[in-house]
Amino acid sequence: MDKFKIGIVGATGYTGTELVRLLVNHPEVTIQFATSETHAGKKLSDVHPHFLDTTDLVLCSLNDFSEFEPDLVFLALPHGESMKFVEKHGTDSFIIIDLSGDFRLSSAEQYETWYQTPHTASAFLEESVYGLPELYRHRIRNARLIANPGCYPTSAILALAPLLKQGYIDPGSIIIDSKSGVTGAGAKARPGTHFPVLFGNFSAYSLVNHRHTPEIETILEKHTGIATEVLFTPHLLPIDRGILTTTYSKPVKEISNEVIEDLFHAAYEKENFVRVLDKPPSVKNVRGSNYCDIFTVYDRRTHQIITVSVIDNLMKGAAGQAVQNMNIVFGLIESTGLKQIPLNP
Amino acid sequence: MDKFKIGIVGATGYTGTELVRLLVNHPEVTIQFATSETHAGKKLSDVHPHFLDTTDLVLCSLNDFSEFEPDLVFLALPHGESMKFVEKHGTDSFIIIDLSGDFRLSSAEQYETWYQTPHTASAFLEESVYGLPELYRHRIRNARLIANPGCYPTSAILALAPLLKQGYIDPGSIIIDSKSGVTGAGAKARPGTHFPVLFGNFSAYSLVNHRHTPEIETILEKHTGIATEVLFTPHLLPIDRGILTTTYSKPVKEISNEVIEDLFHAAYEKENFVRVLDKPPSVKNVRGSNYCDIFTVYDRRTHQIITVSVIDNLMKGAAGQAVQNMNIVFGLIESTGLKQIPLNP
Amino acid sequence: MDKFKIGIVGATGYTGTELVRLLVNHPEVTIQFATSETHAGKKLSDVHPHFLDTTDLVLCSLNDFSEFEPDLVFLALPHGESMKFVEKHGTDSFIIIDLSGDFRLSSAEQYETWYQTPHTASAFLEESVYGLPELYRHRIRNARLIANPGCYPTSAILALAPLLKQGYIDPGSIIIDSKSGVTGAGAKARPGTHFPVLFGNFSAYSLVNHRHTPEIETILEKHTGIATEVLFTPHLLPIDRGILTTTYSKPVKEISNEVIEDLFHAAYEKENFVRVLDKPPSVKNVRGSNYCDIFTVYDRRTHQIITVSVIDNLMKGAAGQAVQNMNIVFGLIESTGLKQIPLNP
Amino acid sequence: MDKFKIGIVGATGYTGTELVRLLVNHPEVTIQFATSETHAGKKLSDVHPHFLDTTDLVLCSLNDFSEFEPDLVFLALPHGESMKFVEKHGTDSFIIIDLSGDFRLSSAEQYETWYQTPHTASAFLEESVYGLPELYRHRIRNARLIANPGCYPTSAILALAPLLKQGYIDPGSIIIDSKSGVTGAGAKARPGTHFPVLFGNFSAYSLVNHRHTPEIETILEKHTGIATEVLFTPHLLPIDRGILTTTYSKPVKEISNEVIEDLFHAAYEKENFVRVLDKPPSVKNVRGSNYCDIFTVYDRRTHQIITVSVIDNLMKGAAGQAVQNMNIVFGLIESTGLKQIPLNP
Repeated sequence: MDKFKIGIVGATGYTGTELVRLLVNHPEVTIQFATSETHAGKKLSDVHPHFLDTTDLVLCSLNDFSEFEPDLVFLALPHGESMKFVEKHGTDSFIIIDLSGDFRLSSAEQYETWYQTPHTASAFLEESVYGLPELYRHRIRNARLIANPGCYPTSAILALAPLLKQGYIDPGSIIIDSKSGVTGAGAKARPGTHFPVLFGNFSAYSLVNHRHTPEIETILEKHTGIATEVLFTPHLLPIDRGILTTTYSKPVKEISNEVIEDLFHAAYEKENFVRVLDKPPSVKNVRGSNYCDIFTVYDRRTHQIITVSVIDNLMKGAAGQAVQNMNIVFGLIESTGLKQIPLNP
Repeated sequence: MDKFKIGIVGATGYTGTELVRLLVNHPEVTIQFATSETHAGKKLSDVHPHFLDTTDLVLCSLNDFSEFEPDLVFLALPHGESMKFVEKHGTDSFIIIDLSGDFRLSSAEQYETWYQTPHTASAFLEESVYGLPELYRHRIRNARLIANPGCYPTSAILALAPLLKQGYIDPGSIIIDSKSGVTGAGAKARPGTHFPVLFGNFSAYSLVNHRHTPEIETILEKHTGIATEVLFTPHLLPIDRGILTTTYSKPVKEISNEVIEDLFHAAYEKENFVRVLDKPPSVKNVRGSNYCDIFTVYDRRTHQIITVSVIDNLMKGAAGQAVQNMNIVFGLIESTGLKQIPLNP
Repeated sequence: MDKFKIGIVGATGYTGTELVRLLVNHPEVTIQFATSETHAGKKLSDVHPHFLDTTDLVLCSLNDFSEFEPDLVFLALPHGESMKFVEKHGTDSFIIIDLSGDFRLSSAEQYETWYQTPHTASAFLEESVYGLPELYRHRIRNARLIANPGCYPTSAILALAPLLKQGYIDPGSIIIDSKSGVTGAGAKARPGTHFPVLFGNFSAYSLVNHRHTPEIETILEKHTGIATEVLFTPHLLPIDRGILTTTYSKPVKEISNEVIEDLFHAAYEKENFVRVLDKPPSVKNVRGSNYCDIFTVYDRRTHQIITVSVIDNLMKGAAGQAVQNMNIVFGLIESTGLKQIPLNP
Repeated sequence: MDKFKIGIVGATGYTGTELVRLLVNHPEVTIQFATSETHAGKKLSDVHPHFLDTTDLVLCSLNDFSEFEPDLVFLALPHGESMKFVEKHGTDSFIIIDLSGDFRLSSAEQYETWYQTPHTASAFLEESVYGLPELYRHRIRNARLIANPGCYPTSAILALAPLLKQGYIDPGSIIIDSKSGVTGAGAKARPGTHFPVLFGNFSAYSLVNHRHTPEIETILEKHTGIATEVLFTPHLLPIDRGILTTTYSKPVKEISNEVIEDLFHAAYEKENFVRVLDKPPSVKNVRGSNYCDIFTVYDRRTHQIITVSVIDNLMKGAAGQAVQNMNIVFGLIESTGLKQIPLNP
């Protein structure tokens, strides 16, 4: 069989290069094109020398798009840019997996409230499918526009969905305390990501107004049918890759550690990329891989349920999950090209 | 006036060397002796070469203790060891500032529950004063036995006490999510603190059963008179120094950001070492100093109060606070010897 | 065709787990057994949770060795242990790739001088082949005992061999200044690898007496036929993986940057895993991969040649190179199972 | 006695804030003004919150300079900017300590060759004194314009000067392999200092053409009277503070470790800030302090002398040394305000 032809729009940022890393070695696809407006005409390995000898990919401009007939296009663009692409090209000619936040929320209003900018392709919001396979695999199979989940939401939703779905916790009590490595902030150097600023440092940011808050609430609500409100606080870890999310919620049923463990094992036993642990996870145990590791514990004393989950933000939190979605939509085995064993140490 | 004579028992661990760093340059005290059973007879600078040329201190054994007549002794010992010293020497001949957990809790029973070992000097529990100057300065002045606070509790109590004391929050709703640098685990190499294990890593540990839980609850209860229950979750940051603590609690009164800010400014405006900020703090902004930086925000949407506080765990979380306590008990200006400006970058 | 059956002796250290990471996904081999005396009977994923769901491997004791009939055995043992295994089992029944230093030097005398311990299997020194494919591929093909190179020597020899072999540099002038990540020191926690000791730190160690000195000299001499003396200074980088080696040597012929570049391109153009760069390399550009990146420059002013080379010490410096050797000795395509693209960022 | 009045021009970069850290607690000086063109009118603690409560300093513009009558001005400016200030203000009204490279070299020609820009205040080159107290204390005492040494040169010159001065080494054989933390690159965020780029990374840069090369040669020549040529290679360490410099040189006399040790002890025994060690130094052993730690060893086998020296690049490599120079020129005890004990861990 011929390989599927895919394209990557925005191939030189962190999610873009992670897509290349995965797809170059993927047995069922070929990268037909990869764009970069800044570096069009250069070899990818001239921009990112770690790719030397691994791919001959030459970056092109989005202006050359008409030359290609891809089966699927990954959009690794900043939010606001993806919607322009979708508006222009529609979803008839090829499948789109968008890694930005543009098609994750329910409505243009919600988008505008949290992103502080108008949504110019709201007609496609309805059609878009949230690309979290563990929740929406059946819909992803037939999707034409997949909104690849945010990194924080992936770690939080996978940890909370089983509890909420089965009615174990109060949907108004949820606190999400997340800690992310710096690649989550993108490849562009900023004063706040200057090495001496972050080395040996740690801080919270975007308190009470981070854009992943409505994404988490919206998806949990859609999935469970229960109105859900979360307080989400991100923190910046002085490492390159990895997210750890700790959640706190109040049980509304009689509960025990055994019950919760059974619940999570049942929810994820058939999943390729969710590992339910019997001890607290570490971000390095998923580095470079597509795994999400989850641990839960019930505190009898304070009557709270704690979950701790970890992902590699560039893998299960971005490019890895995007490839997982691609595999699903192409009818491939879901783990194809995603069997990287975590790089630890 | 003659300088005060002080001794340090256990001078080669991290809190011990941090005490030496502060006291060598303290204008009102002289270090009469510093003990180490492992290294007795050696110069401190032979064990820790960064002290070369800064002090001639020669380590001695606790067996030589009778040679000295100190005004005050710092115990920088593991828990369990401090109580033996106190039991043997009592508190009549000199003041004791204990940096272990042995005299922080209310009762031998509570100690034995959380520390899993009997308390053999429980007669002194009553007499001991919890050495958090911002709450107990008046009692510290006349204390003979000061239980220097734990690092996590310092960061959490300073952030929660004003809210609880003034009745702003539900004392049963408190969640404390803390993140600490690795020096908090002590100077002894362990498999879990091997550099390649922690580099680029992050994890939660001691879920629901960390010993600082009852310390935080006990002190908040004593201070406010209100029964308080907290869920405390520590995490291990891949840095050397620094704690950041995020707390979540439910208001029980009408509240606003202005009200909370005023509350914290009022609580700490006369304090030398608590800085109330108008933006989220960073651990590097207090590195090497005795400051605790605190930021608060109220989330109208989820009706939660968030506090974020940072300290250097070896300073305000251990040795710096111990010197602050010493200054108080000696009647010195409280900031004497503690004016180190944070080392940033 | 049936897969080759391989065994790993010492599977829980850093080179052992890296071998597992590579071999689990290797299409032409099956791991028949993996030993650990400490953890025999446990699943590898219980000892190293990042392997969960990626392999069902159960660790066994070396005492169970007689149950197996492997085609090839990797020895990921400390020096001194490998020679015992080789002495006991010989090289008739299966091929051995030894990752320790036991079979890299020329003679028992040289070994005893630098390793300070007698060599008890010196009869095998003659037979052993130094497993640096770029120099000894033809001999590796028929080897029964392969001495897998040390991490520092790999980075130094690949950078110096072309210059020496073609007679461009004075073989008595060579200075090698190397910097290695901490995994090079092994998986065992030691006082010197305690996280707070190394975090933010950097130092030189083993000045003038590191065991890789005679290895570098011996191999360069054997390869070039020229008596060679090097001054080798290792330093400890506060990172987990990666070696960067800077060498300095005096040209003995008229030379230019163009001449050197041509020399290196010619030497390595057919190599899968050596990339000759036109700018200085970074260790992160080879992280998790089997590449060695090399850059050279001639300083007209001081008349010195500088080379800078980088490898991942656990890959091209240990397990990756071992798998490359295995591929050669099995007659497989040399890059089989070694196409991991560097994990950057 | 009245305190000396000093000013800092360029107070918000890394050397500027380090000067403030030292001078706020200096007992003999008062900071009369501190400039920042970007942040004029703001409190320093608004720009750098770690200064909160430690100083009320309000930044002003250089345009306000005429309001002040300082005794001494520190120029913490980029090269090229300092010469403009010196040209405009001369050295009659106040002493100048320039932390840029503008007045370190011998001639305008040399400057233009290495800095690629004309020198517009070359009339002052003659008058300027190189501010390395260990070599030039007697001249610094009466200087009006002090060229504060570069960070790399400080670490290299202190390690090489005793050997060269006493004729122990071949002045044409010197190799300097240096490794610096990232604060050496300044406070401005650049693509190459983006946290994810440098985290876990290490590389060499500016091979054969770094500007500190002629500075090292010039000063060694002036000091020893011997024409000296060095090959200097800098590398970028993934830490915030600290330089380690390894040098290699060929002895030209009979030599032994004892002879070299005696030489260094003799050279530095009266120095406050140079510590001659009997084992290899670590950068963390000088963090936050003004010390330079030096270790030497002679390799009998290859007949080379190795030195390893460490400094905190912002202290002995910049601001600490500048304050040391200020103390000398003011006739104060040289260590005044510089007794910070290294912050380790």
